[in-house]
Amino acid sequence: MRSSGLTLLSAATPLFPSSLLLQRLCSHSLPLRNPTRLSSSATATATAAMAARVPPAMESPPPPVSKFSIALCQLTVTADKERNIAHARRAIEDAADKGALLEIWNSPYSNESFPLYAEDIEAAGGAASPSLAMLSDVARRKRITIVGGSFPERSGDRIYNTCCVVGPDGELKGKHRKIHLFDIDIPGKITFKESKTLTAGENPTIIDTDVGRIGVGICYDIRFQELAMLYAARGAHLLCYPGAFNMTTGPLHWELLQRARAADNQLYVATCSPARDPSAGYVAWGHSTLVGPFGEVLATTGHEETTIIAEIDYSLIELRRSSLPLRNQRRGDLYQLVDVQRLNSQ
Amino acid sequence: MRSSGLTLLSAATPLFPSSLLLQRLCSHSLPLRNPTRLSSSATATATAAMAARVPPAMESPPPPVSKFSIALCQLTVTADKERNIAHARRAIEDAADKGALLEIWNSPYSNESFPLYAEDIEAAGGAASPSLAMLSDVARRKRITIVGGSFPERSGDRIYNTCCVVGPDGELKGKHRKIHLFDIDIPGKITFKESKTLTAGENPTIIDTDVGRIGVGICYDIRFQELAMLYAARGAHLLCYPGAFNMTTGPLHWELLQRARAADNQLYVATCSPARDPSAGYVAWGHSTLVGPFGEVLATTGHEETTIIAEIDYSLIELRRSSLPLRNQRRGDLYQLVDVQRLNSQ
Repeated sequence: MRSSGLTLLSAATPLFPSSLLLQRLCSHSLPLRNPTRLSSSATATATAAMAARVPPAMESPPPPVSKFSIALCQLTVTADKERNIAHARRAIEDAADKGALLEIWNSPYSNESFPLYAEDIEAAGGAASPSLAMLSDVARRKRITIVGGSFPERSGDRIYNTCCVVGPDGELKGKHRKIHLFDIDIPGKITFKESKTLTAGENPTIIDTDVGRIGVGICYDIRFQELAMLYAARGAHLLCYPGAFNMTTGPLHWELLQRARAADNQLYVATCSPARDPSAGYVAWGHSTLVGPFGEVLATTGHEETTIIAEIDYSLIELRRSSLPLRNQRRGDLYQLVDVQRLNSQ
Repeated sequence: MRSSGLTLLSAATPLFPSSLLLQRLCSHSLPLRNPTRLSSSATATATAAMAARVPPAMESPPPPVSKFSIALCQLTVTADKERNIAHARRAIEDAADKGALLEIWNSPYSNESFPLYAEDIEAAGGAASPSLAMLSDVARRKRITIVGGSFPERSGDRIYNTCCVVGPDGELKGKHRKIHLFDIDIPGKITFKESKTLTAGENPTIIDTDVGRIGVGICYDIRFQELAMLYAARGAHLLCYPGAFNMTTGPLHWELLQRARAADNQLYVATCSPARDPSAGYVAWGHSTLVGPFGEVLATTGHEETTIIAEIDYSLIELRRSSLPLRNQRRGDLYQLVDVQRLNSQ
């Protein structure tokens, strides 16, 4: 059994989680109204709009819950991995005791650490991964859905940056392997080449959970507007991006990208970062945030360790889409976004 | 000869322009480096990235100038149309005397006014349009490029919301007919249905000017990320959106959308709004803004009448694209944006 950690600090640093938790506030379901219903006068426009997504956009399914709160656990890191795992467990449990349903964590981060900390999620049904085992145990005992942030996954001779989503039965509901590797070079500021050690994932990831249809991206994935557009067209209610932007890209783009993805696609976006350690090799920006479907920041924080709890109300998705019916106003006669896998599977 | 005005206030209000001017600071051209050059190790990735735009993205051409300043003239409006035209002319000329090259204006705005103020741009080569005639005259005399904001254009029995771009020879270089009509309904806040009177344009508009390759959108067009993506794939250096967001959508989205389009597509975005008139039927948000290719606000203003002058440096486009090589990191094996007209023309 291998230890875990997507190192966010240095080669020597162990697992440093941060988490995001989702709390059910009410037990009844308020399904979304049909977001694609149209007045008859808008039929021609709607036909053009439908062509703007290939295949045509799917309706969001009625979510199992429509109103609940989400907790973002932005946790500090230390050099003691066991402490970090226990610390993360406590944070998740504390949030779960308040009704938490969903969690994201991030782990420390360096190319040197990826091979050392990688876990084989598939080999033993999750048991070979202490990270996943802990998440699964907490999820089952607390009856929560957990989006398990990201840690290195070993699969054969490849290593992926992977996010596991666990249901309240403790089972792995799905996993996202980071699609866009973090290869950037801002001279004098930040240089990183994930592709030195990691392999990029091959699939966009949509998971139907007890708290709605979730599209998952990891950190740099958020820069690619196409992925969020694709998730929206697959009917996502909520996009979750565990991510650790840095001190250069964080102030420039972290909030901007979250708000843009939410406003352009009219859905919820939740992000969770580790807390900042100024002495780390890779210094995280922090600022875990929840954004609503108008692009409005519903909750955010600074760079310290903290847990944010904020409310999600999926009925607002349809409200915003009714007010600004962007989905019915697109010009599929001029531009089309193709979801290649969904098209090929038809 | 008909009077002009895309009425931003009420049926009775005449032409109320605001403008945006571009000033050449240096006479030498600094062509952008080839934005698609690749290291050999990135070839496979680049192949996938190229497939993310259909047809493949074009390189931006070397701009005629690489460094210059832009002026945003955010003008007040009155009920006296002749005064407004003269006022706009003076503002453009003042900016031109400082070396201005490019201008956007916006006009007042209501469904009742569109038919009354519409001009036939094509009928008499621009002479039948007093708005265009003034722009053309100022452009020629001051040797500037003018992006003429938007005013209603009559073409047969149709009326479009149209933006004219005039070169320093006074000739019409191209025009953009608003593609996405402003039909929104935020109960108790703002309701508007442009489609009652206007016809949507049929073409994205890219114009090669003396100040670079410009993609033009009008107001609500900015909400559709696909249009900006398409313009970027056609090699635009600068997107110009004359627009008058309102007191509801302005604070929510005006700056967000500009910054998102700029950061996601790594190019310049310039917007220009009328100044605010709180007594108007449609109250404009103001806040004309220039955003750089990192999504950074380079210059902005409040809601009062003012002219902003700020610097554009096209060499920053390549610098940002080198640091964050998003264009070479896209996953064309998973998603593709199709430029329908460009594809069909091949």
